[in-house]
Parts: sequence; C-alpha cells; structure tokens
Amino acid sequence: MLPFARVSIIGLGLIGSSVARAVRATMPTVALVGHDADPDVRGRADQLGFCDDITDTLGAAVTDADLVILCVPVGAIGAVAAELKHDLPADAILSDVGSCKASVLAAMAEHFPARQIVPAHPVAGTEYSGPEAGFATLFKGRWCILTPPGDADPAAVMRVSAFWERLGANIEIMDARHHDLVLAVTSHLPHLIAYTIVGTASDMEEVTQSEVIKYSAGGFRDFTRIAASDPTMWRDVFLANKDAALEMLQRFTEDLTMLQRAIRWGDGDALFDLFTRTRAVRRSIIEQGQDDAAPDFGRTHE
Amino acid sequence: MLPFARVSIIGLGLIGSSVARAVRATMPTVALVGHDADPDVRGRADQLGFCDDITDTLGAAVTDADLVILCVPVGAIGAVAAELKHDLPADAILSDVGSCKASVLAAMAEHFPARQIVPAHPVAGTEYSGPEAGFATLFKGRWCILTPPGDADPAAVMRVSAFWERLGANIEIMDARHHDLVLAVTSHLPHLIAYTIVGTASDMEEVTQSEVIKYSAGGFRDFTRIAASDPTMWRDVFLANKDAALEMLQRFTEDLTMLQRAIRWGDGDALFDLFTRTRAVRRSIIEQGQDDAAPDFGRTHE
Repeated sequence: MLPFARVSIIGLGLIGSSVARAVRATMPTVALVGHDADPDVRGRADQLGFCDDITDTLGAAVTDADLVILCVPVGAIGAVAAELKHDLPADAILSDVGSCKASVLAAMAEHFPARQIVPAHPVAGTEYSGPEAGFATLFKGRWCILTPPGDADPAAVMRVSAFWERLGANIEIMDARHHDLVLAVTSHLPHLIAYTIVGTASDMEEVTQSEVIKYSAGGFRDFTRIAASDPTMWRDVFLANKDAALEMLQRFTEDLTMLQRAIRWGDGDALFDLFTRTRAVRRSIIEQGQDDAAPDFGRTHE
Repeated sequence: MLPFARVSIIGLGLIGSSVARAVRATMPTVALVGHDADPDVRGRADQLGFCDDITDTLGAAVTDADLVILCVPVGAIGAVAAELKHDLPADAILSDVGSCKASVLAAMAEHFPARQIVPAHPVAGTEYSGPEAGFATLFKGRWCILTPPGDADPAAVMRVSAFWERLGANIEIMDARHHDLVLAVTSHLPHLIAYTIVGTASDMEEVTQSEVIKYSAGGFRDFTRIAASDPTMWRDVFLANKDAALEMLQRFTEDLTMLQRAIRWGDGDALFDLFTRTRAVRRSIIEQGQDDAAPDFGRTHE
C-alpha cells in the first residue's frame, strides 16, 4: 500500500528534484506533479523528466494531490501557503522540507487546519543547487524529522512517515521548537562559521587570494563546501531561526575566546584536552553511519 | 639521477610513513632508514615494512643518510635536532615536514649551519594518525612549501625540491614568516574553529550528544574530520605559531560579530551578499585541483 498516490512538489531545486527522483525510484506508480516559480527552472525540470507533469501555475500543481511538499526557501513558505489556500484539496496533506520548523508551522497554520499539516525536514543535502543537482539516493540512511502540530491527525503523520521511509530515510518526531534548537547546533551554526571563515580568508591583505586557494588542502577547503550552499535558502534560515542561531553563536564565541586565551598564555594542556575530546565525537558519527570512515571524506588521492 | 640515495625518516606516523611509502613507490632504489621515539610504533613500522631498516636509536638512523626528514610534532624538532648534533653527517641535508616554519628554522639553525638546512611543509594529510594511516599517494597534486634560510645552499634547495617533485608534489619556495601567516589562514585557523565548534556542540544542555551525532549530516560532520586530527601535533602548532594564530582569530571574531549583528537586526541583504561571495571561493579551489568537484566531497550515498 502506497502512503500517497498523487504527490505534488513545489520548488524543483536540489531537494525538490531529489524527492521527485526518489519517488520515481521507489514508488514508480505515484503520479508526480511539479511546479517552480521560475519559468527557467520549470523548463529544465521538464527536460530532465523526473515529474509526470510540470504545471505553469501553483494552483494547477495541487488540485489533484493527496500530498503537497513545499521545497522552497523557508522565507517563501508563508506566501506559497497563502496562495494555495483555495486550491489545496480538503483531504490533501501539506508538508515541506524546510531547515527550521517553528516559523514554517506558524506560516502553514495561518492558512490550513492542523489536521492537514505535517512539516518535515530531511537532514540531507549537498552544496549544489538546482534541478540538475538532485539524485534519488540523497535521503538514504539520513534522518527525516517531522514536527507535526500538537493537534495533528495521527494518521496523516503516519502516512508522511511511511512516505519518507520509502525514500530511505529514518524518521524522528520532534517538537518544532526543539528541532530548531538541535538544528541550530548541528547545521545552522556550522554553516554560519563556514561562511564567516571563507569570508575572513578572502579579505586578507598580507595573504593573497591565490595563496588561500593553493594551500586550502591544509584544512580550509573542508569549510568551503558548505559555504557554497544556496545563499537564498541560508539567508532565510538565519532570519527565521534567529533566536536559536544567536544563542549558539554566543556559546561558540565564549568557547573560542577560552581557546584564544589558552593559546595566548601557552596553556598546552588545555589545548591537548580539547583536541582529544573532539576526536571521540567523530568516531561516534562514523559508528552511527552518519559519515564515511574513509580518510579525508573518501576524496581521491590519485 | 636520484636527488638522494640514502634517506632517513625520523617519526613514523601518518606523514613519515607516507613519505617512506611514496619514496618506495617512486624511487625504489633509495635506501630507507626509519626511527620513532616510541618502541611500539617502531615495532609496527617494522611489520609494515615500508623502510629497509628501523633503528632503535636516533643516532643510528642518520649515520649513513644524505637526507634526514624530521616527521615529528614541531614542538619536538628542537630536542631532536640537538640530539642529532654529533651524528648527522656533515654533507647530509636536514629537513622536516612541520606545519609552522619560523620556529622550526630557528630550532635547526641553533645546531646546524644554514647550508645543511632545508625545512619543508607538504600541505597534505588526513584525520588519521600512526604508521598504518600513511599511503604513497598522499602528496600527489598537493603543494610542498620549502622555507630555506636566507643563506641556504641553492644546490641543497634544488635537491629537496626534486625529492618532493618525485613524490608528486608541486613546489613553492617561501619565507618562513610568510609561510606561517599563510598557513595560519588556510590551515591553523580552520583547525581551531573546527575543534571549538565540536567542543561547543558537545557541551549543550538542551540538546543531547546523541542528537548532535544523529543530525550531523546537516553540516556539523564536515567539521569533525579535521577536529579528529592528532592532538599533540596541533597543540604544538598553536604554541609555535601563536602570533599569527591569534591575529587570524581576531579577524575571524570581528567578521563573526558582524554576521551576528546582521542576524540580530534581520539584515538579509548582508547575509545574502556574503553567502554569494563565498560560493566563488569553492569554485576556484575545485578549478585549481585542490578539491573534488563531486558533491558532498564524493561521499557515497548508497
């Protein structure tokens, strides 16, 4: 039994096009309709052929759907939900893939009853953007966090869970506020730090841009990957999850200041202790299948 | 013509054992002698067989050498150089692989004439340590920076250049102080930041350690790789390159504060501008062959 028979995907970038491809691969009988606000993206998606139909209007994309997934930047969720108000079938479920959930839940709840809303966040992605960047296995072995409203329909939550499980994801159900705090640590803070350090390195006077590029294998290049992520998506995340992001930044800055002091005063033991402790964290991530054990992320060395 | 016929490697961890393996692979007739201060590492290196001979004492390792490469943490360079004072042949060249160079150059110059000294830094590595972690292709396509003293022997510099080119590296010659500034940006600051953020994420009260691990694919896991690097090596780097590290930290903190302010005041344009600019840096790194173009560092998604 398929959890949904007619799925509509709004927003056909990296994540939207990956969802479509994964549905095709794992539930080939599902009718897939796609829409994107950008006519150029619609044309490219049409050529790539991962949906049965690409519609020119938002309304036309959802009229027959039993699941609608908004794969747009979180700052656009409110406007899209408002526009869908009269077109979403009364028995369809509205979901999304946004990286922060309290603001998404509030925006959806403004226009739809709780029984129709099941926000979701698949914790997966790459640094590439656009419909060409998606692939069917993106969600395999990754976690998908659902943050249904307190008065959600349990059957709807189960169907959305089953849907993501079919795409290969593990499911976790969480309160939207707690989600935003957890992801502020594991995703939003790392992106902020990466964006900052790449900016800092580009702005040196004594060290040229060309030197920064040439010697980036010393560690810097690891940060450039997530600092190459979609700018619109990430701008919206920080505006929407402001409080948690600021809280994490504050903690990070305190810890960095402590480390800075240890360097200034030559406190080798403090440095050694921290550097030993952090090693164990990577080991756990590998043990739990959330990263490769291959050295250097498995980069080729030939 | 081989640049050196008898090479001694002191310190048989990731880098030392990779140099040995790379010499074996590219210059099989070179006589390779190895030594490590740790008897356990000597035993393992002996079993792995990447040297012709592993000696129990430091002095015995160098008596026949025409090139001696110190592959020990930079904090140990001074003591090893002092111990080698009476054993290093007068026509042998002394080099190293340390991540900071002004302190290494000073430590070597205390015991040996400038004509014998050619410090080197291959900008390559992985997050793994020990003699088992090395591999012959580690230096292929990476940069090796030489920082000879002002009154170095040009012939010695050319021979060390030729040696690293045989191992697959590109050569750059640089003043030791400038090296330390460049690497503070491209390597030391990234490691400091990575160690800090992994520490910060481990210390949350509202978010469990298990949640940090589970959702690390949102970005955090990228930082854990370099934060799993050898603690002794990195403690020494920050103690030895203190001034440049503190200067970079200060710049980074200023930039982070600016970003923090943009988030607090909802300045989406400032965020978007930075996030767009950083994308171009990654593109350059890939174009210049210093990282893979494969999405997600080429991690497997199956």
